[in-house]
Formats: sequence, C-alpha cells, structure tokens
Amino acid sequence: MKALTYQGPGNPPKLVGVEKPEIQRPTDAIVKLKYTTICGTDLHILKGDVPTIPSGLILGHEGVGTISSTGPGISSFSPGDPVLISCISSCGTCTYCKRGMYSHCTTGGWALGNKINGTQAEYVRIPNAENSLYKMPPGIDQEGLVMLSDIFPTGLECGVLNADVKPGSTVAIIGAGPVGLAALITAQLYSPSVIVMVDPDANRLEVAKSLGATHTATPDKAVEVVKQVTEDVGCDAVLEVVGVPETFAQCQDLVAPGGRLRMWAITTRLVDTTTTPMLLKLLAARKLPADKLITHRFKFADMEKAYETFGKAGQEKALKVLIEMS
Amino acid sequence: MKALTYQGPGNPPKLVGVEKPEIQRPTDAIVKLKYTTICGTDLHILKGDVPTIPSGLILGHEGVGTISSTGPGISSFSPGDPVLISCISSCGTCTYCKRGMYSHCTTGGWALGNKINGTQAEYVRIPNAENSLYKMPPGIDQEGLVMLSDIFPTGLECGVLNADVKPGSTVAIIGAGPVGLAALITAQLYSPSVIVMVDPDANRLEVAKSLGATHTATPDKAVEVVKQVTEDVGCDAVLEVVGVPETFAQCQDLVAPGGRLRMWAITTRLVDTTTTPMLLKLLAARKLPADKLITHRFKFADMEKAYETFGKAGQEKALKVLIEMS
Amino acid sequence: MKALTYQGPGNPPKLVGVEKPEIQRPTDAIVKLKYTTICGTDLHILKGDVPTIPSGLILGHEGVGTISSTGPGISSFSPGDPVLISCISSCGTCTYCKRGMYSHCTTGGWALGNKINGTQAEYVRIPNAENSLYKMPPGIDQEGLVMLSDIFPTGLECGVLNADVKPGSTVAIIGAGPVGLAALITAQLYSPSVIVMVDPDANRLEVAKSLGATHTATPDKAVEVVKQVTEDVGCDAVLEVVGVPETFAQCQDLVAPGGRLRMWAITTRLVDTTTTPMLLKLLAARKLPADKLITHRFKFADMEKAYETFGKAGQEKALKVLIEMS
Amino acid sequence: MKALTYQGPGNPPKLVGVEKPEIQRPTDAIVKLKYTTICGTDLHILKGDVPTIPSGLILGHEGVGTISSTGPGISSFSPGDPVLISCISSCGTCTYCKRGMYSHCTTGGWALGNKINGTQAEYVRIPNAENSLYKMPPGIDQEGLVMLSDIFPTGLECGVLNADVKPGSTVAIIGAGPVGLAALITAQLYSPSVIVMVDPDANRLEVAKSLGATHTATPDKAVEVVKQVTEDVGCDAVLEVVGVPETFAQCQDLVAPGGRLRMWAITTRLVDTTTTPMLLKLLAARKLPADKLITHRFKFADMEKAYETFGKAGQEKALKVLIEMS
Repeated sequence: MKALTYQGPGNPPKLVGVEKPEIQRPTDAIVKLKYTTICGTDLHILKGDVPTIPSGLILGHEGVGTISSTGPGISSFSPGDPVLISCISSCGTCTYCKRGMYSHCTTGGWALGNKINGTQAEYVRIPNAENSLYKMPPGIDQEGLVMLSDIFPTGLECGVLNADVKPGSTVAIIGAGPVGLAALITAQLYSPSVIVMVDPDANRLEVAKSLGATHTATPDKAVEVVKQVTEDVGCDAVLEVVGVPETFAQCQDLVAPGGRLRMWAITTRLVDTTTTPMLLKLLAARKLPADKLITHRFKFADMEKAYETFGKAGQEKALKVLIEMS
Repeated sequence: MKALTYQGPGNPPKLVGVEKPEIQRPTDAIVKLKYTTICGTDLHILKGDVPTIPSGLILGHEGVGTISSTGPGISSFSPGDPVLISCISSCGTCTYCKRGMYSHCTTGGWALGNKINGTQAEYVRIPNAENSLYKMPPGIDQEGLVMLSDIFPTGLECGVLNADVKPGSTVAIIGAGPVGLAALITAQLYSPSVIVMVDPDANRLEVAKSLGATHTATPDKAVEVVKQVTEDVGCDAVLEVVGVPETFAQCQDLVAPGGRLRMWAITTRLVDTTTTPMLLKLLAARKLPADKLITHRFKFADMEKAYETFGKAGQEKALKVLIEMS
Repeated sequence: MKALTYQGPGNPPKLVGVEKPEIQRPTDAIVKLKYTTICGTDLHILKGDVPTIPSGLILGHEGVGTISSTGPGISSFSPGDPVLISCISSCGTCTYCKRGMYSHCTTGGWALGNKINGTQAEYVRIPNAENSLYKMPPGIDQEGLVMLSDIFPTGLECGVLNADVKPGSTVAIIGAGPVGLAALITAQLYSPSVIVMVDPDANRLEVAKSLGATHTATPDKAVEVVKQVTEDVGCDAVLEVVGVPETFAQCQDLVAPGGRLRMWAITTRLVDTTTTPMLLKLLAARKLPADKLITHRFKFADMEKAYETFGKAGQEKALKVLIEMS
Repeated sequence: MKALTYQGPGNPPKLVGVEKPEIQRPTDAIVKLKYTTICGTDLHILKGDVPTIPSGLILGHEGVGTISSTGPGISSFSPGDPVLISCISSCGTCTYCKRGMYSHCTTGGWALGNKINGTQAEYVRIPNAENSLYKMPPGIDQEGLVMLSDIFPTGLECGVLNADVKPGSTVAIIGAGPVGLAALITAQLYSPSVIVMVDPDANRLEVAKSLGATHTATPDKAVEVVKQVTEDVGCDAVLEVVGVPETFAQCQDLVAPGGRLRMWAITTRLVDTTTTPMLLKLLAARKLPADKLITHRFKFADMEKAYETFGKAGQEKALKVLIEMS
C-alpha cells in the first residue's frame, strides 16, 4: 500500500510503498482510510521536534475509514463498519483510563504517527480498537468528522473545559489557527456572552468572525479591545493556543480578577478525547460546523503537495487540508 | 398609590388605593415599578392554595423599576437607578445565603406577594435590597427583563441545571407553559442535541418549535416520539414542569438508563435566583429571547382584566402578560 | 467442583457438584475463589424476588481469589494473580461505561449470580475481566477486601456520594445493616461533623458507635435526637438504606432545608463500582476498617449453614459472614 | 487604646497609644480583641514588601473577640457577641462575592492591617461586618479559633481544594511552616492515602509527623521518598507553599502524570475564606486540632517581643504565636 513516511529532521516527507499492516494483538483492528488530514504537530515532527520518531515511520493521527479486519478480542466492530479514528489510543480499563485520562493510558496515549505507524496511509493498525475507534452515526458529515479525530476534542478539552467557559462568560482566544478556531466553535456550546479572537492574520480574524467571534483584534490591540468590551474588567477565560513566549506576558493583562488563564505551553492539559462521544452527537445533530475549517482538498496521491500547502498556511490561507484516499 | 390586592380564597383580586410603602430597616429600598407581570403562582394564591396569605396583601413577586429611596445600610444603589427585582429576597450573608441557597435565607426567601406586600403596585418595599435587586445594564431590553424576576431563573435552576443538561444531551420537557418554555430557552445555553417538548396545546407546541424545540408531541405520543428520536434509549434529562400526578407515570418511560428525571412536585428544588447575574449578562448580550414569552400587554389600570386574561391562558393563547405601570 | 445453587423460590440453596467453568470469550477470565460472602440480595433471590433467575444458577456476586486462566484478549492479568472480583461486570468501553455508568454496561452490569453463574463456587467465569477484576495490592487485608466487591462501593456511591457528604456535614443514616455501616465508614472519608445512626437493634447501634457514629437512636427517637444535635435544623444528608415504606415518612422530618434525602427505593442510583480503585488504595493504606463488618466465619463446605446464620442476622448478631474456600 | 503599628520598611513595629476606632458606616462593627496572632505576611510588611502600607498603620488581620458596637445596618450581631474575625472583609453581595470570590470583593478583600487599621490592637473596626465576622459557637476552643482567621482557610482553599485532594490521593506538601501544616491538617479532611511533608527543618518535620504526615523528607530526599511511596508514579497533588524559585524545579519531579501541581507564587489562588463556616463546624465538633500550631504565648503588652520571637521562627522553633489581649 501507499503511505506518507517521515524522512528524518528537516526533510520533506515521502509517499512510498510499504507492507499493509496486520492484526498483532487480539484487541487490534485494521482500518481502511477514507479521509485523513495533516496536523500542526506533523510539521513539528518534520522539523525534528519529536526526536524519538524514527525515519520511515508513517505519519498522521487523524482519520475516518472503514473496518477492514478485527482481532478476536473485538466485539463492538465488524469489517465494513465506518469509523472515526481517535488521535489517542486507549484501553479504557487501566488506572488512568478509568479516571478518564486516556492520554496517559499505560498501553496507549498518542501512539499513531508517533510511537507506531499512523493514518496517512491506505490502511492503519489501531491498537485497543474497542476504545480508540468510534462508530460513525448514519448520515453524519464525513468530511467534518475528520476534524473530530484531534482538533475539536483538543480545542474543547484543553481550551474550553480547562478554562471553565460558562453561559455569560467573557472569553479571549489568542491564536486563530485550527485549534483556536475549534476552541471558538466549541466555546459556543456553553453560550459565553463575549468571545474576542486575537491573531495577527487578517484572513483568520475574518474566518473567526464568520464562526461566531463577537470581536476580533490584532495582538497589539488585544488589551484595548478586551478592556473595552468587558468594562475594564478583563475576560473570565483566556485561552492562549499559540505556545510562544511573546504572547505570554500579554495574556496576564487580558484576564479578569479570579478568571482562568490557560496557556498552551504551561497550564493546559493533554487531550484525552473523552469528549468525542459528545462531539459526535452534536455533529450528527448538525450543531457543530466542523467542516468549516477545511480550506483545501487533495487526493492522497498528492499528499506531498498537501504538506507543502499546509506548511505555508498563512500564504495559502490554509486552515485544515482534507485528504481523500481515492 | 394603587395596588392589586388579594381578596380571600376564590375571589377576584382588586385594584385599590393604599399607603405608599416606607423604609423600615436600614437595608431596605423602595422601588417605583415600571413593569410587572402575573405568575401562575398568583393564580394558585387566588384559589386559596397558600392559606397563610392574608386578605388585603398586595400580590406579585416580579418587576422592573427605579430606586425611589434607600435605607442607610445600602451603598450599591441610589435613587433613580433602574433595577430588576428578584422574586427571592435574600441577605447574602446568612448561613444559607453563603451556600447559594437564597430561597432558604433566614430573613428572606419568597417574601414579596407572600409574606409581605408585592410588586403589583406603584411602589414596593424591598428588604435586603443590596442582594435582592440587580442594576439594569444599559441598553437592555426592559420588557424581556421582567421575565428574569422569576421564570427564567426557575426554568434554568429547577429544570435545566437540576437535570444536568450538557452539550449533546437529549432532553424532554413536559409542559410548554411559561416555565417550561423558559426551561426550553435556557436548556439551549448548554447545547443539547435534542429537545422534545410535550404539551396537549397545539398553539404552545408551535411556540415551542419557534423557540428551539427540535421535536414536539402531545402527551399521548410522547413516549413514541422520544423513543424514535433517541433510538429507543430515552432522554438524558426529563423535566416535568406540570406538577400533576397524571404526568408522573409517563415520565418514567421517557428517561434513559442513568438519566435524570426531575418532577416539579417531587424532585425539584426551589429557585434561588443565583443564576440571575448570568442571565442578565446574556440578555444584555442579546443571547436570550426572553421577550418572546410576552403575548399580551396591559396598562396597570387594567390589572383586573389582565388577571382575567391570564386566568384563561389556554383560550386566550396567553403565556406571559406584561403590565406597564403608566 | 462444588457450588452453591439456587433451588427455586422459598427453598434453601444447595451445595452441589457442577462442571468447572471455561473461557467462552477472548475477554473472559476464570478465577479460583479464596473468599466469598453472602449479600442481603442473595436472601431476596431465595424468596423469589428476582423471578428471572433460573433454578440451578450458582449464587453470589462477591469474592476474592486468584486468576486460573485468561482469554487471549486479556493482557493485564496472568494465571496466579490475586484479584478482587467486582459485583458489577463491565467492558469499560461502551457508551455507558465511558460515562462511568458501569451498572448500565451494555454487555455487563449485575451479571454474577443473576444473569450468569456467580462466586459462591470454587471457580467462576468473569466476563469483561479486564475491567471487572482488580489486582490485589501486596500486603492488603484479604478478608476485609471481600467487603469491597459490593457493600463498600454501594454504601459510598449510592449513599455518601449521592447525598454529597462534605467536611462539616451533619448526616443521618437510617438502617445499621452491612450497607448502612459501610455508608457510616465511608462517610467518614469526607469528615462530617455529626453522624446519627438509626436502627431498632441495640447491638447494631453499639457496632455503629464503635465504627464512628457520633450519635445513635432507635427509630422512635430519631427525630428528637437529630433535632437536638443539629440545633433543630435537621441533617444536611439523610441516607435511608432500609427500603421499606414505614421509614420514608420519618426521613422527611430529619432533613435540613436544602439538604439531601436519599432513599433506597426511590432516589438512589445503582452501584457502578467506579470507586473501587479509591477504596483499594485506602484499604491498602490501612485507612478503611472493612474487616470490622465480618462477624462470622465459615468453611465453604458449611455454606448452607452460613446461609442459615445470615438468614437470622438479628438473632445471630450477624453482619457479614466470611466464607473461606478451603 | 494600645496598638501595634508599622514604622516603615526595615524598622521593628511599635506598640503605641492611639484613638479607639469608631463606627464609620452603617455596616461596620467594632470588635474588642481577646486574642490575635502574627502572620508571615506581617513580617513581609515589616521588610517593606507591601509598599502601599503607610507608616503608623495598625498591623494584623487575625483575631477573636467580642462585639463592642454595631452600625444600624447590622442585624446579625449585638454588643457582647463573641466572634471570629476573617482576614478577608467582604460584603457578600457584589458581583465577586456572589461568586464566592470574597478576596476580590469590590469594597473589601484583604483590608485589615493592609488598607485599614488591623487586629493587633485592643479594638478594631470591621467593615461589612455582617459577612466578615462569624459568631463563635458555644464551647469552642478559642485559642485554636484564632487559627481560623487566616491560615486554615488559606491552607485548605489555596492548597487542598485547589489541588483537588480526594480520598485515596497521594499528596506532597513542600514547606512545613504554619500554612503548610494547616494544609496538612485540612488535607486529612479528604482522607488521602499518603501525605509526604518536605522541609529542611527537622523539628518541623517532627511536628508534621505528629499531625498526620505519613512520610517526611528533607528537600534533597524528596524525589526519592515520593517515588518510593508512590511506586515511581509521583503524587496526585503537590502543594508548594514556600514560594521561592529554588523549590519550583523540584516540584515538577514530584507530580504524577495528570496530577495537580499548585505553586504559591504561580498557580494558587487568593484565599476567599468561604470555607470558614465548614471549618468552624469542624472545630466545634473537635475534629480540627487547630491549637496544635500554637507554640508560643504572649501578653499583648509584650507584642514587640512576640514579633522578635516569630521573626526567628527556626531558631525559636516557633510556628504560631498566640497573643492574649489582657
């Protein structure tokens, strides 16, 4: 089969021919991909930021497909079932999983495209499949669904829930990339009264506006705008999703007394994807415009080009790129 | 001044001339009413269901107005300030208030139009005014605001929060009167995926549909509709806001395994109005269509007629009647 | 092997020779019992209160033992591992289990000694073993451990947590049987200031006193004692664990304004055993005197006699009977 | 009257004669002190760390006494009532107080011995007295009670609750001074299985042991001890109450995956004293050994000497010094 593989730090990834994966453990399943996408994390990997990843590994931790085969320990899924792949693999029964901390699963966590071969391939092996795949509700928007592998649970859990957004809250989100916009969309599930979106990119601010931001600001105007719309009090919840030190100092000036400041590099948590069932219900009920983040579409054969486009996201006005397998 | 007074069980209330109220304690305020309304509870009082209420008491526990005078212990309000009156009077500092249980305030609770003269009058004395009045945000919709004295916090606290409605939840609400519809509107602050509204009145179901119900049903079809839209599972949250035994048995058949059933007469709590600040922020941000519940408008001089209309709510297609003082 | 089997409504159970259980599904494990016990529920079964149970079924849903064999889908347990058996079997990954509602597991719930053969036998087959067994911490008190199969999670989840016992709370527990006493012990994990234990049996009240009740009362004195120790306010949390209508009316008089009343037959939830990991840690740390509820000890060969004694609990001053397998 | 006053940065405080305070607003009360104490914060003030404090201000924010007089807006307290003074003054009704954020009260917060004259005096004026004083339960230990003005709510709210200590939790507390020890005592209200206390001072570790620490360690051994008692996992809750950068790095090595790290200077919150009613109930029920932190006693006339002793806490083996007014 064809797969997109890592070629070591600094090199572009390559689409190559590799062996089809096989069931290794009774709790595995093999999924035939239909859609996948590229994550900002994949770009970090290419730069060499995750040094434990070996050359030749298949990248990708997001995807939608159909069950191709299952191990004998799997009873919820059968070949042909359409499924969503979670970016986090988890057993559901270890001491961490029992507490909902799937990211710390003793036999899972972020495995795909990191510790084992990932989803940017025609087929992928999913360990602990029973708890790491989700049956696709009938009639659901399959393109938007790919956004639920990672960025929607991430924006919701690490951003919105972590900062305790509530009805009437005033919220500021620093960074209008895909995760920031997923936080913007999922914040609205809790009916805040104000959402100020902050980003230097005018195009992204425009997108934010169309997705429900009540106000937008470039970073240099952020404090001014926040003070104005909160009567000088500051925001109840400030989500910094950029993760660079330049934005940290500013965040302090945006938060209300007793408000919650959650910064990507310091106070956020890992995504556990425990909110995936809730997001699936909302997507199926057409209450989650997840597909709105898709700006570009590629065939899997053009995967290398998809990486190029996504790598120049600002210039290409790219948010998420959807890869169709055939 | 003029005031609407109770005339004993079974008699229609009367608009009569009475003394203007005066400050009695340092923590009192006198409010000049601008708008008031009638509650289903007022009809219960007329029937004699609250036997502790003496003939001659001024009815009403909802209203919007301006501060007329304040006691020396009041520092947050000054004459002329426009305010919302809460149906619950509370000191904010007793052992119950400290726990957010304003309905059990040792010197307050439901006092207006019950233990002391109420708001269906030109002026009303508000005890513990510091914690029982809310400053009106500038530019807020004052007619919708009257709905925040009682039915919106009641629908939200006793219904929505008590039944733990969450994003993706499936909800059934039995009873599409004013409180049921306030529950319908405030449930949407938490983004449920399904809301089934149940009522025998076709007009009310139509209103419910226009206010966000995803499905409606008459009582005889309720179980069928709920099963259909929840794949036979039942609803995560069932709110019974009618309070008559006939509806109780049915409710059991509507609730999902492990779901929450909250019935008015048995498992709901009293309204504490602790959500009023949140509701005010949302109304000011134009995210709460509170005014949509107002179906009829009267001048205060026609108060007796307002009661007549409200007393025949079904026939008159009445939900809430707005009374303007002048 | 030998096993204690149900003989139909009204008949005493019988110890008979039966086939040893075998692995049926890849996620099964076979456990060789070391200790088991009898539950009040088992007595209900004997009376015929659970009509779905067929004659010949092996009773029992509590036990401690060692893994004898495992299916190919099990990776956390190996033959020889000492384990605690949970009274609730659960997959950990279905839609209910993901929400911590193990009692509603689509392929489990209360299965042992109810839908499938139970633990009052030399060997038992445990379905969904990965999530239904708990590794025994080294050095833990194995006799006390049997109490963690059912009554401790039940007293904690259905009683203490359901009624939201907090530091400083005043608590009343109606019924000083094994579950009531487990509630008494686990309530103390949250440091209430007062615990009034109510029971007609003087011996049980004495036991309650020795296990941490601050006050005790016979039912006729309960209201008086509660009023006295709470300055006429009533208790913040009232747990009724008897489940008979006679005690219901009284409970209303014991609860403080805004307090929580949890009655076995009406407002309690099913036990999910999600607190088992916490209880295991506390038992291992010697902070849970679970063994104090064991009043009688029998060899498995005397199982029928054990049932007789437990059936006359009042007369025999029996709380829990410990059955040793060999 | 006599009062202990600030003399500017670097100077020892002085006991001087000053005017008795008087009621200024209707919601004030004057309290005649019986006991007071000195806080670590008072030493910071003496060094000049709170530059907004003017020379001549009366220090102190902790105390127990009796009501001497009340303004006309006060209805809960009468002259002669014995009371506990909270270190946080709060109105109970402003937008922050309504959310339980008393530390941000718009007309209060940390006022005593900071913005207005404090409690190290024969009399003190308490603004917003209704919500800032607590009636002393009859028979309560009055010496231990002084510890409830500040360090017990601080240890509980900023440490224990902020780090979500639960039954079975493993906890590490860095710093065994008065606040660290108050955290140690209040952590036990939630029944953790392990509490490791870390401090360089052998005497303080011994005190910690006697107050319930399950393990102790000097800072150089902290990681080793924590790993050993948690099977290499780390602690679920790590409370750093020293507030100096040297201890920060180490804390990271003490926390379990997904555990909570709360550091004084970064991630803790201000004390709101909303837990005071709960602590009062527990002290009255003799379930809080608050008096165990008192190591030295002085008469108010020797207040300057008390400061000297407290200033050399290590050498003097001092934790809290109790000052009796007469």
